[in-house]
Amino acid sequence: MFFEGSEKKVEVICKPTLGSLREFGRDFWATMVARCNATILSEVSNDKCDAYLLSESSLFVWDHSFLMITCGSTMLVNSVEHFLARVRSDDIESIIYQRKNEYGPWLQKTTYSQDVERLQSMVDGVSLRFGYLDEHHTYMFHLNRDFAPKKDDTTTEILMYHIQGKAAETLTCEKQTIQSVRDFMKLDEVMQGFQVDDYCFEPCGYSLNAIRDDKYITIHVTPQEESSYVSFETNINLQKDHPGFVDKILETFEPFSFDVIDFNTKTEVATKGKMVKINHFQDRLSCGYDVNFAHFIVPLDRVEKPTLVKGNKL
Amino acid sequence: MFFEGSEKKVEVICKPTLGSLREFGRDFWATMVARCNATILSEVSNDKCDAYLLSESSLFVWDHSFLMITCGSTMLVNSVEHFLARVRSDDIESIIYQRKNEYGPWLQKTTYSQDVERLQSMVDGVSLRFGYLDEHHTYMFHLNRDFAPKKDDTTTEILMYHIQGKAAETLTCEKQTIQSVRDFMKLDEVMQGFQVDDYCFEPCGYSLNAIRDDKYITIHVTPQEESSYVSFETNINLQKDHPGFVDKILETFEPFSFDVIDFNTKTEVATKGKMVKINHFQDRLSCGYDVNFAHFIVPLDRVEKPTLVKGNKL
Repeated sequence: MFFEGSEKKVEVICKPTLGSLREFGRDFWATMVARCNATILSEVSNDKCDAYLLSESSLFVWDHSFLMITCGSTMLVNSVEHFLARVRSDDIESIIYQRKNEYGPWLQKTTYSQDVERLQSMVDGVSLRFGYLDEHHTYMFHLNRDFAPKKDDTTTEILMYHIQGKAAETLTCEKQTIQSVRDFMKLDEVMQGFQVDDYCFEPCGYSLNAIRDDKYITIHVTPQEESSYVSFETNINLQKDHPGFVDKILETFEPFSFDVIDFNTKTEVATKGKMVKINHFQDRLSCGYDVNFAHFIVPLDRVEKPTLVKGNKL
Repeated sequence: MFFEGSEKKVEVICKPTLGSLREFGRDFWATMVARCNATILSEVSNDKCDAYLLSESSLFVWDHSFLMITCGSTMLVNSVEHFLARVRSDDIESIIYQRKNEYGPWLQKTTYSQDVERLQSMVDGVSLRFGYLDEHHTYMFHLNRDFAPKKDDTTTEILMYHIQGKAAETLTCEKQTIQSVRDFMKLDEVMQGFQVDDYCFEPCGYSLNAIRDDKYITIHVTPQEESSYVSFETNINLQKDHPGFVDKILETFEPFSFDVIDFNTKTEVATKGKMVKINHFQDRLSCGYDVNFAHFIVPLDRVEKPTLVKGNKL
């Protein structure tokens, strides 16, 4: 059984003069979600943010920005088109469209290049790849426009592949419940004061949105054995406010490999001689963000059996 | 400029009762090559083997077996179909169809799964993947049939990615000549007594076939900056006859990462604390071959700039 956990992501910041994006109304955002073939499963709100848990990941809407993350074979670029049909390019300060290398890129409905072609027909952007083509990498398309992000506008993504050990045992399709996943993740410290909205999928998979004031945390677990994947993303400055947290989450999920993508912050990973940093790409985007992309791996000290490829799928 | 160096490969062994494959004639093999959209550039022969240098890699034909390797976006499965239209499955002792992970899998005309579907419609086989989906890996489809390979039937593939240092400087598109590549590779020791047929492509790229008795060596260099790739393959037992040679070739090309695929031999790599073995997959195929697949990497100690993605191609 295969499910593509790797995500596409778009983050858009609009000018305050446009008014509040939250006032576009639920129908607008529901259509936005439908455009990429996802649906809204549940939602939580506070004064600053509406957080939608989706059938394929998450949507967060603030007054002047939104963040949408989708996995599987969703076409997030369709949703971006929907947004750009409503909002003039002049009312936008920043767009960052991101796409992580997929487990099965040939199963996607569009390639990154096709997405970019469509985006370029609407806005003027720059397209970058962090990482080598044949190793883990992330593509990034951003507006070619000066922008000064707010000082606290940081993002950290921890993308974990091939979860092992107790994590792999616990997060199987048969055993998952909301409570068992929560208990397993032990996120109480970082989740203090957050309003949580989480969901267990059939036959497996787990998603979580959490908000507190204008901060968010989102977690997506794809435990499928051949393509297990866990993503953790937040705009909390982990490095500053929760030093050591990233090491804890890596200890919890025991991934064979993982990526850290930082915007305007720099996460330190205590590799403890066990993990190896394979790649580190860094740049200051012309739209004002310092981006770090690093890929880590835990070299195997064992010899594995090959995988029998069944059903002609992968 | 992008060119897919990663190769598809098929090796077929027939029963001696079928007669000599070399007597199928040049037209048969030229059609076989044309079926996957390649052409024969040149050829050398000896008592045991006809070696064809192709516009996309190589074809070696012995009396009772053949080996065909093709890169780019060739459809090697078409050539296999051509062969199986002429030779009954009962006259075949072994088929191994291999496909390495590509730099740009979405640019291929078929997926590995589609290839296997076509092969399965003609012969009964088993399909395996050595390596994780999101890391370097090779697919292998082989006949589900008992077979006892000859004792000296060994193969070693050294697949090198992202050549660096002097190799990257020397093997650029502007500077390559047959002599400059030969001089650079310094393969005299291992090539002793071999008949050599090599070719420089426009605007770049280099291929070499070499034969001596029933032994072959084949080398393909794709120096394109964003997707540089060098493959070295031989049925010489390097580990036994040329210990240390693999380390030499790695020193020459200075790849950022490389794979070693061994059939019925086991190549030792002197990692010297510099390279890390990321993965090692091993199995004895039901068709009688011990296969080892290992992926090595030289962890970067530097921070790289992302790649500007131009022309919407990758």
